[in-house]
Amino acid sequence: MSTKKKVGILGASGYTGAELLRFLIRHPRMEIALLTADRRAGQAMEDVYPQFAPYELPRLVAIDSVDWTNAAFDLIFCALPHATTQKVLKDVLAKAPSTKIVDLSADFRLTDPASYAKWYGHEHQALELQQEAVYGLVEIYRRDIKKARLVANPGCYTTTAELPLIPLLKARAIEPDEIVIDAKSGMTGAGRAAKEEMLFSEVSEGVHAYGVGRHRHMAELDQEFSKAAGKDVVVSFTPHLMPMNRGIYATIYVRGRRGKTAEDMHAILAEQYGNEPFVHILPFGKVPQSRHVRGSNMTFIGVIADRQPGRAIVISTLDNLAKGASSQAVQNANLMLGFAETLGIDQVAMFP
Amino acid sequence: MSTKKKVGILGASGYTGAELLRFLIRHPRMEIALLTADRRAGQAMEDVYPQFAPYELPRLVAIDSVDWTNAAFDLIFCALPHATTQKVLKDVLAKAPSTKIVDLSADFRLTDPASYAKWYGHEHQALELQQEAVYGLVEIYRRDIKKARLVANPGCYTTTAELPLIPLLKARAIEPDEIVIDAKSGMTGAGRAAKEEMLFSEVSEGVHAYGVGRHRHMAELDQEFSKAAGKDVVVSFTPHLMPMNRGIYATIYVRGRRGKTAEDMHAILAEQYGNEPFVHILPFGKVPQSRHVRGSNMTFIGVIADRQPGRAIVISTLDNLAKGASSQAVQNANLMLGFAETLGIDQVAMFP
Amino acid sequence: MSTKKKVGILGASGYTGAELLRFLIRHPRMEIALLTADRRAGQAMEDVYPQFAPYELPRLVAIDSVDWTNAAFDLIFCALPHATTQKVLKDVLAKAPSTKIVDLSADFRLTDPASYAKWYGHEHQALELQQEAVYGLVEIYRRDIKKARLVANPGCYTTTAELPLIPLLKARAIEPDEIVIDAKSGMTGAGRAAKEEMLFSEVSEGVHAYGVGRHRHMAELDQEFSKAAGKDVVVSFTPHLMPMNRGIYATIYVRGRRGKTAEDMHAILAEQYGNEPFVHILPFGKVPQSRHVRGSNMTFIGVIADRQPGRAIVISTLDNLAKGASSQAVQNANLMLGFAETLGIDQVAMFP
Amino acid sequence: MSTKKKVGILGASGYTGAELLRFLIRHPRMEIALLTADRRAGQAMEDVYPQFAPYELPRLVAIDSVDWTNAAFDLIFCALPHATTQKVLKDVLAKAPSTKIVDLSADFRLTDPASYAKWYGHEHQALELQQEAVYGLVEIYRRDIKKARLVANPGCYTTTAELPLIPLLKARAIEPDEIVIDAKSGMTGAGRAAKEEMLFSEVSEGVHAYGVGRHRHMAELDQEFSKAAGKDVVVSFTPHLMPMNRGIYATIYVRGRRGKTAEDMHAILAEQYGNEPFVHILPFGKVPQSRHVRGSNMTFIGVIADRQPGRAIVISTLDNLAKGASSQAVQNANLMLGFAETLGIDQVAMFP
Repeated sequence: MSTKKKVGILGASGYTGAELLRFLIRHPRMEIALLTADRRAGQAMEDVYPQFAPYELPRLVAIDSVDWTNAAFDLIFCALPHATTQKVLKDVLAKAPSTKIVDLSADFRLTDPASYAKWYGHEHQALELQQEAVYGLVEIYRRDIKKARLVANPGCYTTTAELPLIPLLKARAIEPDEIVIDAKSGMTGAGRAAKEEMLFSEVSEGVHAYGVGRHRHMAELDQEFSKAAGKDVVVSFTPHLMPMNRGIYATIYVRGRRGKTAEDMHAILAEQYGNEPFVHILPFGKVPQSRHVRGSNMTFIGVIADRQPGRAIVISTLDNLAKGASSQAVQNANLMLGFAETLGIDQVAMFP
Repeated sequence: MSTKKKVGILGASGYTGAELLRFLIRHPRMEIALLTADRRAGQAMEDVYPQFAPYELPRLVAIDSVDWTNAAFDLIFCALPHATTQKVLKDVLAKAPSTKIVDLSADFRLTDPASYAKWYGHEHQALELQQEAVYGLVEIYRRDIKKARLVANPGCYTTTAELPLIPLLKARAIEPDEIVIDAKSGMTGAGRAAKEEMLFSEVSEGVHAYGVGRHRHMAELDQEFSKAAGKDVVVSFTPHLMPMNRGIYATIYVRGRRGKTAEDMHAILAEQYGNEPFVHILPFGKVPQSRHVRGSNMTFIGVIADRQPGRAIVISTLDNLAKGASSQAVQNANLMLGFAETLGIDQVAMFP
Repeated sequence: MSTKKKVGILGASGYTGAELLRFLIRHPRMEIALLTADRRAGQAMEDVYPQFAPYELPRLVAIDSVDWTNAAFDLIFCALPHATTQKVLKDVLAKAPSTKIVDLSADFRLTDPASYAKWYGHEHQALELQQEAVYGLVEIYRRDIKKARLVANPGCYTTTAELPLIPLLKARAIEPDEIVIDAKSGMTGAGRAAKEEMLFSEVSEGVHAYGVGRHRHMAELDQEFSKAAGKDVVVSFTPHLMPMNRGIYATIYVRGRRGKTAEDMHAILAEQYGNEPFVHILPFGKVPQSRHVRGSNMTFIGVIADRQPGRAIVISTLDNLAKGASSQAVQNANLMLGFAETLGIDQVAMFP
Repeated sequence: MSTKKKVGILGASGYTGAELLRFLIRHPRMEIALLTADRRAGQAMEDVYPQFAPYELPRLVAIDSVDWTNAAFDLIFCALPHATTQKVLKDVLAKAPSTKIVDLSADFRLTDPASYAKWYGHEHQALELQQEAVYGLVEIYRRDIKKARLVANPGCYTTTAELPLIPLLKARAIEPDEIVIDAKSGMTGAGRAAKEEMLFSEVSEGVHAYGVGRHRHMAELDQEFSKAAGKDVVVSFTPHLMPMNRGIYATIYVRGRRGKTAEDMHAILAEQYGNEPFVHILPFGKVPQSRHVRGSNMTFIGVIADRQPGRAIVISTLDNLAKGASSQAVQNANLMLGFAETLGIDQVAMFP
């Protein structure tokens, strides 16, 4: 008798899909029963990602070919593009309402329909689901996630910045109006689409900012920071592309509030995350490196005093494909299915 | 009652030491009871490799401080430099003769004392152990390894080249006198020593051969190929350093013998490795990529026909720190301790 | 009165087009009068390559909009794709027969129409020009190039391999039937087309061979080597893609003929290239690195004895975009226009 | 009769020394008459940097062996380490007082002896020279540089940040108390010293901040910004190391003052640098990339409006070895010797 839950991945041909597989192939309680990829339907997974050749996996199928009513999946990971996602999931849940879903797209992260319409340029097509969805930042919303049917897995930039800043804002330890987030990302964050600006020779041996003043992850940051601060918060956030595959590195400049020092901020974070398996607070003054979390579900956070009294530099780093996407999705799924939270995602980081 | 075996790592501060830890921390049947690093003695492992901060590990100690007689280790992984190794292991086995050892250095790979003296410039200091040692190329010497006390884990270049070539030579399918091995390695193969020629700016954005005509891994190749061919074999072997961290990629040029074609060679390898968990033979004509085995214990091998009749190109690739060193060491240890061979080293490759 | 010659670049939006501009902007005797790029027609060059923003350059135009009859260009660099090239140049030379042309495509490199048809799968569309074209490997065909109207600039792999091998074959110093060329290339060699397999995350941190047994540069090698050897030569040639932008690195395995040693080979090359400004023969036994020619028109060649008597390893390296394409094109143009050969292309290599 | 000036490089074996040579070998008015490198004395330059093999250059000598009194150098580039520099130059100028000097170290950048002592931990050993030295940020201090005997070439981080910020502070267009500078540097900025933390495998595939809250370039920034603002300015400045060779990329967060908008800031910079050959202001809202200035003496600056009213993001980028060190040094030397400012340093950037 199998005690495994039957799971599927929608959009298995993208990088987050492949990364989900890396974790799920070795997950002791999940059975991979479905892999979809519309443009690669009919192919084997190893045709898309040769590293999976040694493993037995279902062939890729088109989403439309899935018989949702009879398939009886326990949980679906959805790694489809924005906008497509809301249509597909509305359909899936209409046909198989007891399916649990972890969605890795941006479609269900924003609670406010107006904010969604503003940042994405159109009305949301599945408003009821938008209201139902729970924001899947595990360390903050664990309780709600356990009971959720639909979880919106947070963005990679947002997970990196929210883990340190939400507790600091909640504690009223920093000025909410003076937060500057300078974020650096590896290239996998931009996905597998064949675009000129993502070619090796266009991005190696150099660095550049993008989406300056208008990156969509800002909407997600605003939502969570405003909630934490109890007032509207608008941050300065600038993402950069680095010549590396994996890793988000957020250098966050903050000013202490009501006499709070960098040491106080460190104490708040150490207290908050002391028992968390996947968030590690470095000793005060120590600087994390993105490579030390590579391939793992860990987030490393450091707090350093600026030479300007009252100011601090908070640095947070994680692997954008792992904790920033796929392993956090499995972390959410573990909670939703009643498993130990760390199951299948406790791999040690790979450095060098 | 613990069912775990007590293991230690000598030389834990090098890259192969760190990579051993990556696997052992999650190994279900091994308990890490000792970590040595003479120059870092007294420090925590996280001071040397910050990625280990989240885990409880013994502090680093000096080798001389270990009480071998009373410690009762079940197995020791030795990741010390060449020459030091033979002295240390001679001492360890004198004091604790029932300890099993997997040695990752070159010290016990050569069977012939004369060959050792020629390539290393001095007499071997532990000749009896040299004779006792079993060459730890698991897929070829599995039976002997299970019974061994001392296993010499093969070199990274040699594992890459021997896995495809030993079966072809044994089958008399290729000309032993016309083998050209052009090997490309990631930088971790050169270790963690602070040398000018290994600085980022010296090795990025370029490629170069090194040790041309005189790399020590040649002695190991000669030994194994001559054994397989039943006659003296001397190959052309040229190693190159690539601007990447991990991966060995051996492009091997061979000529078929007695009418043997590239297809025949492919069939021999497919037959030999059909049931091996860690060697994957690609479909005939397909070309492997080093990145698809990154971080895993897998070896990928492809066979392609050259346009010159009777000639073939055999390409073999693995992760130099994993199957080329540390996870093969654990694979050996699993066999020596009577565990399932795949225990703790069945991680899926990490790409991208 | 201007003493500058009026030149144009067809296909200025590719990497070789941009690299031509890098040299031509500072060329003391050439005036850039035309830049074409059909898909970017109407745009400024800085929209395609921002590094050119500080310089005054003609806007990009479509090829069809050029009035060849009246424009009176002295010389055209053609950096268009294969097959398109022969149609365009046939038309240009029909309308403006006195225009000199350096073509960077493969269209005019093969002399034999049958060889062309075999490797490219269709009949050549400009057979007369094919017969007229001179192969632009400057150090070998300098005399013919000076008098040529149409020069076929050699491929990057072929320049790298031919510079060392043509003199050795001519001198009958090596066995023509046992040549193995293992070539490694930077990613710019693959051009600027937006393809999934050229994305940063697909090619960084790894290496792989491609076109094994069937790369089209083989036809060019066969032609030149057969001519040099005075008999049909078919080599083993395997190209690889490296995680770096620039550089070709050819590791060539040869066997001496009629008692010729590696030292003899070195002497032949040193003699041949002793006075060449752009070919540097390293001292015997020294190994070149691709990074030491980066950005320059230099080729570095080393000859090392193999440990197998009678065998040698010849290593040749150049910058695929410079000597492997654009600066060699300028070198050809200098000869065709009667300028000093080194004019505008004597930049020192950029390392680190 | 030679019209060339006789120049020397002290400390030719470091990266800035090699980069100086790259420019000086082709400089039409300078003759390289001296190369020193104490630890490599007696060697040829090509033994230290093989790319220089094709050129005739003086052999490396020890500084102590130079006969300053009789050598009659017109100008010396000093690329020695901090602290050593002040002793050496004091001696040189005592013996040959008419020698002009461009110093690339930090020794003469700070005007205030107290500031120097605070940041460097000891009293300055050449106080008179410290007072005499002119700060060599050409676009700001051109007039003084022309008359100077001793010029202190600015640091790479500081040049990057000062070029955009000095004019904005002088114009009172930004709040001096709310400047955040997040800077990213290529690895050549850390020099050629063999340190573990600079090995390829330690810095590739990841990013990290360093010197957080205490980098010495802060002293230089404070000095120049306070001078420009007419009041004490203390900025937040965090440097990061990127997995790339060359390039500094400073993302600067500022708040407009007295109603000044991002557009106003852009106008101020466009006005200031409109006629400068080596500073290019991008169209408003455009984001520069470090790779587009690689190898050149150019600085690219962009100004983008933040979504928070009144705030702007100013991005400045240059090549740390070129405009951030060696080609700016030649720019200074050109002015000091009465040459055209652009002589020998007008190479076009190399991308890709």
